Amino acid sequence: MISFGSGQPDLPPPAELFSVRLGPRKFPYGLIQGEEKLRTAIAKEYPNAKPEQFVITNGASEAIDLTLRAISRPGARVLLPVPYYYSYPHNVRFAGMVPDYYKLRRGKIEIESFLNKLSRAHAVLINSPSNPAGSVQDVEVLKHIEKMAAKYNVHVISDEIYKDLIYERENYLLKGPHVHTINSFSKTFAMCGLRVGYLFSKDEEVVKKVIEMKSHTAMNTNVLAQEMASKALQAPKSLIEKQRNLWRERRDFIYATMLEMGLDLWKPEGAFYVFPKFKDANRVVSELFHKYKIITYDGAWFGDPTRVRFSYALDIERIKKGLDRVKAFLNKEYRSY
Amino acid sequence: MISFGSGQPDLPPPAELFSVRLGPRKFPYGLIQGEEKLRTAIAKEYPNAKPEQFVITNGASEAIDLTLRAISRPGARVLLPVPYYYSYPHNVRFAGMVPDYYKLRRGKIEIESFLNKLSRAHAVLINSPSNPAGSVQDVEVLKHIEKMAAKYNVHVISDEIYKDLIYERENYLLKGPHVHTINSFSKTFAMCGLRVGYLFSKDEEVVKKVIEMKSHTAMNTNVLAQEMASKALQAPKSLIEKQRNLWRERRDFIYATMLEMGLDLWKPEGAFYVFPKFKDANRVVSELFHKYKIITYDGAWFGDPTRVRFSYALDIERIKKGLDRVKAFLNKEYRSY
Repeated sequence: MISFGSGQPDLPPPAELFSVRLGPRKFPYGLIQGEEKLRTAIAKEYPNAKPEQFVITNGASEAIDLTLRAISRPGARVLLPVPYYYSYPHNVRFAGMVPDYYKLRRGKIEIESFLNKLSRAHAVLINSPSNPAGSVQDVEVLKHIEKMAAKYNVHVISDEIYKDLIYERENYLLKGPHVHTINSFSKTFAMCGLRVGYLFSKDEEVVKKVIEMKSHTAMNTNVLAQEMASKALQAPKSLIEKQRNLWRERRDFIYATMLEMGLDLWKPEGAFYVFPKFKDANRVVSELFHKYKIITYDGAWFGDPTRVRFSYALDIERIKKGLDRVKAFLNKEYRSY
Repeated sequence: MISFGSGQPDLPPPAELFSVRLGPRKFPYGLIQGEEKLRTAIAKEYPNAKPEQFVITNGASEAIDLTLRAISRPGARVLLPVPYYYSYPHNVRFAGMVPDYYKLRRGKIEIESFLNKLSRAHAVLINSPSNPAGSVQDVEVLKHIEKMAAKYNVHVISDEIYKDLIYERENYLLKGPHVHTINSFSKTFAMCGLRVGYLFSKDEEVVKKVIEMKSHTAMNTNVLAQEMASKALQAPKSLIEKQRNLWRERRDFIYATMLEMGLDLWKPEGAFYVFPKFKDANRVVSELFHKYKIITYDGAWFGDPTRVRFSYALDIERIKKGLDRVKAFLNKEYRSY
């Protein structure tokens, strides 16, 4: 079985992480907001940021859940991209609000139809780089969104967990009075199972509300994992650069090979997903699994039933082997669709 | 400063916990429901329990939050004890329901008034042993509640996180088709900051819903902490017994000393709190803090403004020293109240 399914890096976490002191020691409750040391270290990664503008959470998931609950107005609309990360619509509904959608065209925001919907929304979720689309939004578009969201007084939840996995430019941090940036140690530092994410916001009200909620819904994020996250930040920046080059190679290979195969897809600019189009995508996923021993994710899970998500979080030899199987499938079965 | 405030054991965690393998290794996502190994080990601690009836959570807090959200019906009543653990009313409201209250009389449930309210409730929360009351409910009362909750088809959330800290008898596990038991590694194994708790329920629907919600709101509980919890369960049972004896000594001492001082309180049967009565409890907490360098918690935070919570999670020498200060306060200031 070759898995193009997984949304997590196959690379190891930075070695620095293992220098944490396991024990013998005590593990008392930590600050609900997160360890001061970790927040101070993260704040240095953002322009004009202060440690008190961060809340350390159980992964990006909890940061999104709590932020939505903190800003919740019953029945209000929250704009989500289509395709979306599959949790978003659930998160919105769990917070007592209603998902509304803006379409990405080949991964990109179409600003006019987006703005039409924005004025009626209470909040909007931006996910650049995108899971599952692998797209990165243009800086001009993001700047325009900043301006209009501030004008309409709309909360912006910016899920930037793939910010260190952009192949074409530096990340552009969305900014604004009600911008709530979501990030995570999972992807950059391969710490998925340790569950360390965070919220960064200059909206004091929201930060305060999130901390208060978290004191009742989970209390502090695991203190040992927070120490490991602090250590991870001490890894040389060249490590991230090196890893990005590795991801870029894989991206180039999978994109070029799929193009050769005649698949309809766009060149991913970030994250580690390609999102090719298929007739009857659901059947494709099922046949690839049962007949070709390949795991892929049905685009329908992400709100686009015309496509299939392939993650390239596996080494290039396995990508090659997996794509050979896809090729065989295309030649043998898919023609008859 | 002497703190009678803390709700966490001052004792160290079991040494077994430090035998976990920190690395170098990878930390991929774990099962949302929790590691099979840990659930299997916990299931052995409960009669007729199966690993699939457990969900490992970020402490008891997340188990309560998710269980309430999973059973939520907008506007439905959830019965809470008074005094209560201060998060409960928030948890109920966060889940879109309405807190209603049943009174504990000197820590004990009064079954008639309780049952009157039960028939109109969607869910009830039982917390025995109680934080802050230090009380343990009688087995006959608990059995009666089981029967009536089943009859009225009311969800029972049984917060038993102090189950291993009962001085008078063994814990009585509340049972029933819609009983959702909440527990934690925090108190028994002094693992507060590591955040490992769990839900145990024979209600398949609720377990399924909690797992589904958790996949969107937090994903797996920290995998390393789960391994540490598995190791903690390998500690000899005599350790828990030894620690219980230590807690009992402290309990006996603080209770006898406060009685001698003439304070109105009941003898705690579980957990590590005493809850004496004071005129103007809020002022008492403030004066103890500012003039006598003693931290205590205002009963108002727990829904009973006539009392003050003292935790005895500190060594007996410090308890003694702290109580001397309380005595001085009683003799000098309190007379004038």
